[in-house]
Amino acid sequence: MKKINVGIIGLGRIGQIHFNNLKYQIPHVEVVMVAEPREKESYKGIPVGRPEEVIQHPEIDAVVICSPTDTHADYIELCATAGKDIFCEKPHDLSLDRVISTLESVKAAGVKLMLGFNRRFDANFRKIHELVSNGKIGEPTILKITSRDPGPPPLEYLKSSGGMFMDMSIHDFDMARFIMGKEVEKVYATAGVFTSKDVAEAGDIDTAVINLTFTDGSMAVIDNCRKAVYGYDQRLEIFGSGGMAQADNNKHDSHMLLDAKGSHGALPLNFFMDRYVDSYLAEMKMFIQALQENKAVPVSGIDGLEAMMIAIAAKQSVDENRPVTLREIQKMAAAKLV
Amino acid sequence: MKKINVGIIGLGRIGQIHFNNLKYQIPHVEVVMVAEPREKESYKGIPVGRPEEVIQHPEIDAVVICSPTDTHADYIELCATAGKDIFCEKPHDLSLDRVISTLESVKAAGVKLMLGFNRRFDANFRKIHELVSNGKIGEPTILKITSRDPGPPPLEYLKSSGGMFMDMSIHDFDMARFIMGKEVEKVYATAGVFTSKDVAEAGDIDTAVINLTFTDGSMAVIDNCRKAVYGYDQRLEIFGSGGMAQADNNKHDSHMLLDAKGSHGALPLNFFMDRYVDSYLAEMKMFIQALQENKAVPVSGIDGLEAMMIAIAAKQSVDENRPVTLREIQKMAAAKLV
Amino acid sequence: MKKINVGIIGLGRIGQIHFNNLKYQIPHVEVVMVAEPREKESYKGIPVGRPEEVIQHPEIDAVVICSPTDTHADYIELCATAGKDIFCEKPHDLSLDRVISTLESVKAAGVKLMLGFNRRFDANFRKIHELVSNGKIGEPTILKITSRDPGPPPLEYLKSSGGMFMDMSIHDFDMARFIMGKEVEKVYATAGVFTSKDVAEAGDIDTAVINLTFTDGSMAVIDNCRKAVYGYDQRLEIFGSGGMAQADNNKHDSHMLLDAKGSHGALPLNFFMDRYVDSYLAEMKMFIQALQENKAVPVSGIDGLEAMMIAIAAKQSVDENRPVTLREIQKMAAAKLV
Amino acid sequence: MKKINVGIIGLGRIGQIHFNNLKYQIPHVEVVMVAEPREKESYKGIPVGRPEEVIQHPEIDAVVICSPTDTHADYIELCATAGKDIFCEKPHDLSLDRVISTLESVKAAGVKLMLGFNRRFDANFRKIHELVSNGKIGEPTILKITSRDPGPPPLEYLKSSGGMFMDMSIHDFDMARFIMGKEVEKVYATAGVFTSKDVAEAGDIDTAVINLTFTDGSMAVIDNCRKAVYGYDQRLEIFGSGGMAQADNNKHDSHMLLDAKGSHGALPLNFFMDRYVDSYLAEMKMFIQALQENKAVPVSGIDGLEAMMIAIAAKQSVDENRPVTLREIQKMAAAKLV
Repeated sequence: MKKINVGIIGLGRIGQIHFNNLKYQIPHVEVVMVAEPREKESYKGIPVGRPEEVIQHPEIDAVVICSPTDTHADYIELCATAGKDIFCEKPHDLSLDRVISTLESVKAAGVKLMLGFNRRFDANFRKIHELVSNGKIGEPTILKITSRDPGPPPLEYLKSSGGMFMDMSIHDFDMARFIMGKEVEKVYATAGVFTSKDVAEAGDIDTAVINLTFTDGSMAVIDNCRKAVYGYDQRLEIFGSGGMAQADNNKHDSHMLLDAKGSHGALPLNFFMDRYVDSYLAEMKMFIQALQENKAVPVSGIDGLEAMMIAIAAKQSVDENRPVTLREIQKMAAAKLV
Repeated sequence: MKKINVGIIGLGRIGQIHFNNLKYQIPHVEVVMVAEPREKESYKGIPVGRPEEVIQHPEIDAVVICSPTDTHADYIELCATAGKDIFCEKPHDLSLDRVISTLESVKAAGVKLMLGFNRRFDANFRKIHELVSNGKIGEPTILKITSRDPGPPPLEYLKSSGGMFMDMSIHDFDMARFIMGKEVEKVYATAGVFTSKDVAEAGDIDTAVINLTFTDGSMAVIDNCRKAVYGYDQRLEIFGSGGMAQADNNKHDSHMLLDAKGSHGALPLNFFMDRYVDSYLAEMKMFIQALQENKAVPVSGIDGLEAMMIAIAAKQSVDENRPVTLREIQKMAAAKLV
Repeated sequence: MKKINVGIIGLGRIGQIHFNNLKYQIPHVEVVMVAEPREKESYKGIPVGRPEEVIQHPEIDAVVICSPTDTHADYIELCATAGKDIFCEKPHDLSLDRVISTLESVKAAGVKLMLGFNRRFDANFRKIHELVSNGKIGEPTILKITSRDPGPPPLEYLKSSGGMFMDMSIHDFDMARFIMGKEVEKVYATAGVFTSKDVAEAGDIDTAVINLTFTDGSMAVIDNCRKAVYGYDQRLEIFGSGGMAQADNNKHDSHMLLDAKGSHGALPLNFFMDRYVDSYLAEMKMFIQALQENKAVPVSGIDGLEAMMIAIAAKQSVDENRPVTLREIQKMAAAKLV
Repeated sequence: MKKINVGIIGLGRIGQIHFNNLKYQIPHVEVVMVAEPREKESYKGIPVGRPEEVIQHPEIDAVVICSPTDTHADYIELCATAGKDIFCEKPHDLSLDRVISTLESVKAAGVKLMLGFNRRFDANFRKIHELVSNGKIGEPTILKITSRDPGPPPLEYLKSSGGMFMDMSIHDFDMARFIMGKEVEKVYATAGVFTSKDVAEAGDIDTAVINLTFTDGSMAVIDNCRKAVYGYDQRLEIFGSGGMAQADNNKHDSHMLLDAKGSHGALPLNFFMDRYVDSYLAEMKMFIQALQENKAVPVSGIDGLEAMMIAIAAKQSVDENRPVTLREIQKMAAAKLV
């Protein structure tokens, strides 16, 4: 098996997950250098350099970008220029123009770019994808995604997040495309601020219902909230001509207590660090495998672009109280993307 | 306890359910006369007369109307004129004007009118209503109703049904108002024909997703399909600031089989005659009790009118590809309703 | 379809259930006369007579015996002499000798005798029986029955009940034979008094674990308690070479509430009048059908005898702290049963 | 936090789990030397030595023994002599005498000895233990443990395993003591060979039901099978005066598929390497913490001895077809254990 040398830029929460997975859990990989301003010369025995040093490092084959969102586009372009394959955390960038221009750079350089839509690699959702792909529910007509966070992020984060649709719902937009295996034609969304003063102060929303209509007329509904008091709620259900498939939450444990008051069980896991820990490992394994076998990465830059356009359409739908077609958004993009 | 004398018009499937409940299951009630063209002089020992005879019968206090939809409005008006309390199966009528005019007659006559939205009396949904009413989920913000039939009705039925929104979804529109305890402001719907040639031939739809926005900005999503191969799918979920409550399907039995291929369990009950059998009894008990205690019926004619207006708005939303406000529909109605 | 004329002796809780089922729910049956000391000349329009009058009534084909246990054997013998088919509530009698002698009378008279082990007709357990019979779990090796009441009966009842094994566990002993389709060879039981002073005063037990070993070495475990604070707990699980099948409780409703403290759902139904209401109807339908088609009843007097012998063995096992074989109990019986 | 230096003897399946947990997952621990005949000079950068070298290594504080069972007692004694704390995989030894003599050595040396009953650290069972300890089910009276492997081990393993009770059921005997928080007084077991020729050839059993009676009369039932075709079945249920608590299996995923044939879900995880992976980490963390804080280990040598005596009693019960008291087994042991 071909050995892959990687560099990592950014060692925040997600960066550390990728670091540990690449260093301890995935064979035939070496972490050669990392970039993280808070670390001095070395991190767990690995040399620390500036991002540019990591990207230019002659022995590094691929770069994993986990730095703040506003640096993603620059690093992707530097990687493309340096001929390095790229794994980049979502979102790619908050500007549609910028996303498109970096995708052009990536395409021109002929390097691989994988976006970190880790939920595609969750065991529950992979199983649903497999069932749908194998025709177990016939032709899918209605998809329902429930995606609720346990609590809103801090005000500072909210201000630079790009808004709930771009920051949080974007995972669900990608999931909708992944599970349905179809493209979105039209978006209608309603939203409000129900849970948090910070959200209002940031000019954002915290609760939304988004309808997607696919090109064949099939439909999806996503409901989001920044605050579910009972934990991280991550479920979906897909209905079709031959049946229905559902993915439930993962829970803290499997206990059930019956007493005189009722039956009582465990809640969903707290948040993405618990629920999706296995998916982060699985997605990174798939990225490394794609490099080793020189095949397409399972989540492309185009996937990121499509999800982003749905987010833009959802925002516009709320603002204008009308269904918005992807075509409208694509027109803005198409002029620039060859 | 005051004894109530009832007459029943129509002994089709639903009529027979009400007959048996009134005759054998509910105390302090006597079925005095029934009207059903297929029956001769008596039915299970009860005299058979024409509808007008039932309505005019001097000993009858209340009339249960289970005849075809296009007769409802006439019989309601006759009952009102005769001073009889009324239980009427849904839908009240397919014409908004006609509904409004009969409601005026009912109001003028001072009789009671209860609409047969039996699902409000289902144990699962009653429990959810109780939890929400008791504040167990805090302030509700997102309601999701899943309502799928096991198969479409015959073409003839479809043609005179008033369309899926008026015939089938109307139960869900009533449920949304019942569970949320709020009024709907705006409706957006997408729909298609995915399961049945008959539906297409009847000019109807068989699959839809309907978004409701309530006056306080909270939201509901209803998804409907005329054909779920796995049975009658009747669930809901309501999310709020303090938690979430769900009602699941009732199943044929509680078995679970684990073999080398997977775990396997029972399907939802077949259709409304199985799933809602208890709710028909409970609703009729509540009707009788309202008469005995001379208090308000639990589902009024206004409830029927509101659900009907949502159905009209949903149809218009699909036709015009835009959100439609109830205000638009109400304007049509308000001119006539004092 | 042949019409069956029945008489009913005893209109206590169970007697009324059978009365209503026979009168209102089962076609081609007429209730001709009932016997119940608390009723005067007629009950719901049916003449009331003494038990002997019911049994001797020339137009009555079959007698349903729901009177106190200590009258069962006498009435069974009178019915046999009168050539009437018999449905008798469990237990047949508390004396093994008496049970055997009445079985001889029944056999000599050539009438049918069905014992009221209604749980065999519960939808959950019937489904498990069907799965096992169809080989879905391969060869069964371990059966586990959970059977717990919501609360102990009154002291007076306890004193004349024959003890927990004979009064309560006997249903589970029958269920074990029904589901496994095999005969019991050996019984070992441990038991104690944990929940009720009344039970102790009555010299009875309230909590027990009973092991059954079948003739082929396969095993069953039954656990009983007179008091489960969370409701009527009626489950079973059967394991075999090809898989496992489980039957869960039926619950008040299907709701689930998730709040900050956990997830909360409904409890099992309260007691047998709720849980087994459908099984009483199903068993009576099967009895009537057996008469109409002149075929064997689904639960015979021998089934009652076998369950009774297991109960006797269980009691002896607790008393003597050793496994007791059915052979030991059968020897007592066999001398008398030809 | 005090740093703990450990040595590991044996790098089979379990040894590797402990190695990886100690090296990568638990802070303030250093793996100084390992012993494994199949490894040359070093293993993942750690020096390899003979077991005696590991035990005598002057910088090693504690030794983790994962070598074959017949070496456990010798290594425990060597560790005791060398003043090293010990973590030893189960079973301690197959000879009751030998277990007792090593426990005396451990006691005399004043070192800590923890037995590897990892299931106590499983999230599900820990939750049940917590609920019971906090009085959530009142006074426990009936415990039911289901413990079934997905397939029998190879013939060679079976021959030297000590038999199913000592090899497999011993985990459940420990669990029964752990969950009930009481000591066993009496054991009754029935068993057979139903699944495997190898088991028969090894003179062992593969299916058993074991009843435990605790000193206060409360009861436990364990059912075991070497082969469940649907996966690794690890559940328990505990019933008491105030309620019931259950722990269910962990499954491959949370999907549910409903089609025209039924509802279908995932199976339990395959085997202990999947189901108990987290518990191995948790138990080792607890061992290290006990050393760091110089407090009692959570599973002692006495816990191992008690479980072993129950296994011996169960075997004797099957052989002699009678309940066997722990007192009988203790008498054998007590003569030697001061």
